[in-house]
Amino acid sequence: MASSLDLEREIETQNALFNELRLSGSDPAGLEEVKKKLGELKRSLGQAKAKAAADGSAASGSKDAAAKKKGRILLKTPKGTRDYGPAEMFCREYVERIVKDCFTTYGGSCLDTPVFERKEILAGKYGEDAKLIFDLMDQGGEQLSLRYDHTVPLARYLSMMGGTNTQSKLWQVGKVYRRDNPVMSKGRMREFSQADFDISGTWDPMIPDAEIISLVCTILSKLDVGEFTIKINHRKILDGIFEVCGVPSEKIRTISSAVDKLDKLPWADVKKEMTEEKGLDPSVADKIGEYVKHKGGPELLDQLLADPALSANPSAKQGLEDMSLLFTYLSAYNVINRISFDMSLARGLDYYTGIIYEAIVEASAPPGFKANPPVDPSSAPSPAPKKKASKKVKNEDGEEEEEVDESQVGVGSIAAGGRYDGLVGMFSAAAAGDSKHKGSIPCIGISIGLDRIFAIIWPKWVEKGKRSKETMVYVMAAGDGLIVERMKLVKELRDEGIKVDFLAKKKPKLPVQFAAGERDEVPFAIILGENEIKEGYVMVKQQKWEMIDGKKVKILAEGDEKGEKVDRGQLVQWLRTTRTWKEWEDGKL
Amino acid sequence: MASSLDLEREIETQNALFNELRLSGSDPAGLEEVKKKLGELKRSLGQAKAKAAADGSAASGSKDAAAKKKGRILLKTPKGTRDYGPAEMFCREYVERIVKDCFTTYGGSCLDTPVFERKEILAGKYGEDAKLIFDLMDQGGEQLSLRYDHTVPLARYLSMMGGTNTQSKLWQVGKVYRRDNPVMSKGRMREFSQADFDISGTWDPMIPDAEIISLVCTILSKLDVGEFTIKINHRKILDGIFEVCGVPSEKIRTISSAVDKLDKLPWADVKKEMTEEKGLDPSVADKIGEYVKHKGGPELLDQLLADPALSANPSAKQGLEDMSLLFTYLSAYNVINRISFDMSLARGLDYYTGIIYEAIVEASAPPGFKANPPVDPSSAPSPAPKKKASKKVKNEDGEEEEEVDESQVGVGSIAAGGRYDGLVGMFSAAAAGDSKHKGSIPCIGISIGLDRIFAIIWPKWVEKGKRSKETMVYVMAAGDGLIVERMKLVKELRDEGIKVDFLAKKKPKLPVQFAAGERDEVPFAIILGENEIKEGYVMVKQQKWEMIDGKKVKILAEGDEKGEKVDRGQLVQWLRTTRTWKEWEDGKL
Repeated sequence: MASSLDLEREIETQNALFNELRLSGSDPAGLEEVKKKLGELKRSLGQAKAKAAADGSAASGSKDAAAKKKGRILLKTPKGTRDYGPAEMFCREYVERIVKDCFTTYGGSCLDTPVFERKEILAGKYGEDAKLIFDLMDQGGEQLSLRYDHTVPLARYLSMMGGTNTQSKLWQVGKVYRRDNPVMSKGRMREFSQADFDISGTWDPMIPDAEIISLVCTILSKLDVGEFTIKINHRKILDGIFEVCGVPSEKIRTISSAVDKLDKLPWADVKKEMTEEKGLDPSVADKIGEYVKHKGGPELLDQLLADPALSANPSAKQGLEDMSLLFTYLSAYNVINRISFDMSLARGLDYYTGIIYEAIVEASAPPGFKANPPVDPSSAPSPAPKKKASKKVKNEDGEEEEEVDESQVGVGSIAAGGRYDGLVGMFSAAAAGDSKHKGSIPCIGISIGLDRIFAIIWPKWVEKGKRSKETMVYVMAAGDGLIVERMKLVKELRDEGIKVDFLAKKKPKLPVQFAAGERDEVPFAIILGENEIKEGYVMVKQQKWEMIDGKKVKILAEGDEKGEKVDRGQLVQWLRTTRTWKEWEDGKL
Repeated sequence: MASSLDLEREIETQNALFNELRLSGSDPAGLEEVKKKLGELKRSLGQAKAKAAADGSAASGSKDAAAKKKGRILLKTPKGTRDYGPAEMFCREYVERIVKDCFTTYGGSCLDTPVFERKEILAGKYGEDAKLIFDLMDQGGEQLSLRYDHTVPLARYLSMMGGTNTQSKLWQVGKVYRRDNPVMSKGRMREFSQADFDISGTWDPMIPDAEIISLVCTILSKLDVGEFTIKINHRKILDGIFEVCGVPSEKIRTISSAVDKLDKLPWADVKKEMTEEKGLDPSVADKIGEYVKHKGGPELLDQLLADPALSANPSAKQGLEDMSLLFTYLSAYNVINRISFDMSLARGLDYYTGIIYEAIVEASAPPGFKANPPVDPSSAPSPAPKKKASKKVKNEDGEEEEEVDESQVGVGSIAAGGRYDGLVGMFSAAAAGDSKHKGSIPCIGISIGLDRIFAIIWPKWVEKGKRSKETMVYVMAAGDGLIVERMKLVKELRDEGIKVDFLAKKKPKLPVQFAAGERDEVPFAIILGENEIKEGYVMVKQQKWEMIDGKKVKILAEGDEKGEKVDRGQLVQWLRTTRTWKEWEDGKL
């Protein structure tokens, strides 16, 4: 029997090959074969591991140990991280471009902060999730940690700016880090990309809030993520409900985080947590249960406004008034149909003080979720899967971690955020050593999970057989290779801003050059020859690729089988006015 | 006397204010005042520190200790890192956009690797600079380090891809990390951005090499960095020279790294290092000195080819033939006038095996450097500054570090790289546990220092008073504020892809709205009123800003003092056809 290590190596190789074949649009039969082989290897690995475990050996999956024993290094990226190759990056860059374009369309400016922060900056901001922070080794200098999100660095920046930059719309796009349990295929990673947009400053109520919600609707509409819903709630409404139901004030935050689990657990489990773990009176829990099962639109708001108990509670009243104004603005922005006022939404982080929201798409939700649920105030919270989605196991590095059944996990919300009016002030006060320091700047923001969006969009790109490169022209030569002449033409075209490539061989055969250009799906093939150079023209062939029966097929432009003779002096102009060029610019190729 | 800590806080605040004022184009008098205050504060700080030192206290600059004592946190970014605010990021994004556009123009595809690697991947790649690697804390999992460059992760990726992706043009743009001694104002940081382009695979000699050099010339020509020179040498020529001069083979690498210091030290110092530290025979060193003082163009190559000793050495001969072919290709690319064949260029890294190069601009060089030096084979290596540029001191965290006299430091080369044919094979062999493993993939690449380019370009942007935002339209309303109507128009325009903002107040005064739009230098101000809405039109004012005597001045479009009445249905079309819009698209605004 082959060793686990060898099998894992072979699986890695086959995985890479599979991805390569899939991306290059190989024929399905070949793909199927590699997939079958992968399946067999994984089964063998399972058996090998089981045997090793039965043998009482400590080798179960301990790749590190095995590699070290043989004096080898293990070629892989760290746990919960991955490389993104050319085709994937082409798609990711497209997603980022759309997101950034929407950010500037909404008046945002870019901010960039370091990937690590002084440890004390992150301390006390993430509650029990603080254990997920990556720390740097103490190498005789400062104590540093990798950033966990973009919100805390932004608040640190705004606090450092002091009174000089209090009103801003700032966006950040970059990676953040959490020592979490990765579910790679659904885009839950230890290193992942977030795109944040935040509005800071004292403005009139609900206007920045409506801007942010309109922004996320604009972004998700432009990206091909399918139907989506923005779940909204208000911390003050929640707090009011807890007060009205009789939750003691010191228990409000912990009961709130129990409510937050309603999208993953059935009410019975949440109630159990409230009563048995957190000591809440069962009759109080039942009252909460009546409130938090509601979701809907403006009519739910009317219903709550008509509730005398809530109207009598100052916190709830304030929250409901905010929500009412927000709905008016969201109608003006024409996005009200995307909104689900969801009273079970609580969000984990402590620092939220007002509106909170999450964007959910069908593709991102756990099994059973439907986007835009019909408004039915009597419907119970969505049922959770019966099967437990995770169990604790020891991993290859000896860490205890949850083993996740990926079929039971959605990618979760693809964007989320809320209002946090106190966070900047926390920094200003801590820096001044004065808890009564008045340096607060109200803020509201959204974080968009770019990996989750990529996990939804990428399979669609593969299916559609989209191009994964921007090269427009491939320059080739017949006969003697004409390397210097090819270089001159290539440079000439590049100097005009045209994206050009050629084969880095001195005397390549013409079919080899064509094949290379076709691998990149380049729409224009330009052929140079001795005669062409002497007489000042080139031959140009136009080609494109289409998915036919799941397979990429090259299609020559009509009447262009033999190519077209184009005057060298007119070449750039000619290229730019072809239909092929325009189709590329319109995003059709 | 105020404490050091308080003074440093005040200096940080004043610094932020100064930058803010400078970026927002404040009047020079105000700027001068803040600058003066800063100067005074810094002098006071110096006195406070001197006093503390004289008192024998350990407080000299120990901000951490002082902050802890008072239970405060210190609001700053980690040493050698910084935030980039909106105006700076606008410039940085512009630089990145140009670089990426050139990368795809040359046929490149994007690769993204994690910010950290397994420690063993980086081990043994950076020689004595390995001490500069940032390690992550062992939190019960893998041993990880922050990436030090993009080259090693690329080689790891290519090796993992095995035989499936051997011929590629890949680019990477992202941050890399070195625990180096920062010189912030010159763009030498602990966290810095590099843009890499690498060509892998077995191609015909010198074609990928010429592609890379042409690429870097294209990029530097498009960026406003001033005149530049590409210094080129060849590891095989250097090795041949060392052999011909009589350097024992085991000393070749260490003598090579001594030669590499010739751009910073005078020949006498380098010779001393060779003979006294490294035990080389002084007569051998003198022979080397004769060779490495040469720099020039193709005529230097002819001169070396005519040297019978070099021609008889196989390594030197191979290198000279490569160089000759490269020069032919660089002429075809029309970049030969940028090249300086510089025999003192050695590059520090061990893994280079062929052509090596560095791009230098006048603005990036230490004092005394001139771009495009006249070809004078008899000229000695450029004299180094007499004053020693650094000395060892203890820093605020108790680390020993060099204190750098910034006036004596250039930003150094702004781009550098070379051919490394063995690195991918190193990984493949180490993973297979077989030093004779045949998995090598020849590679050549370039790293472009984006922070250094930014450090050159940014002051020019500030001087020219360039816009720092893309917002094109500011929507405002007279009278009652018309908040819902403003939102509707804003959304309408944004849905058409126009970048629009408005003041997030319900009933703001018109002058306040104008001022807000002017702060963003928005070229179109659109004014809504009750009548306008009823009759279906808007008023539009066109405005732009120019630097006049170092001050930003608003200029209204000719004949547009009162604004123009535009039909609401035609608004988008109208905006896009104005001269102001076109000037923005052409990059003039």
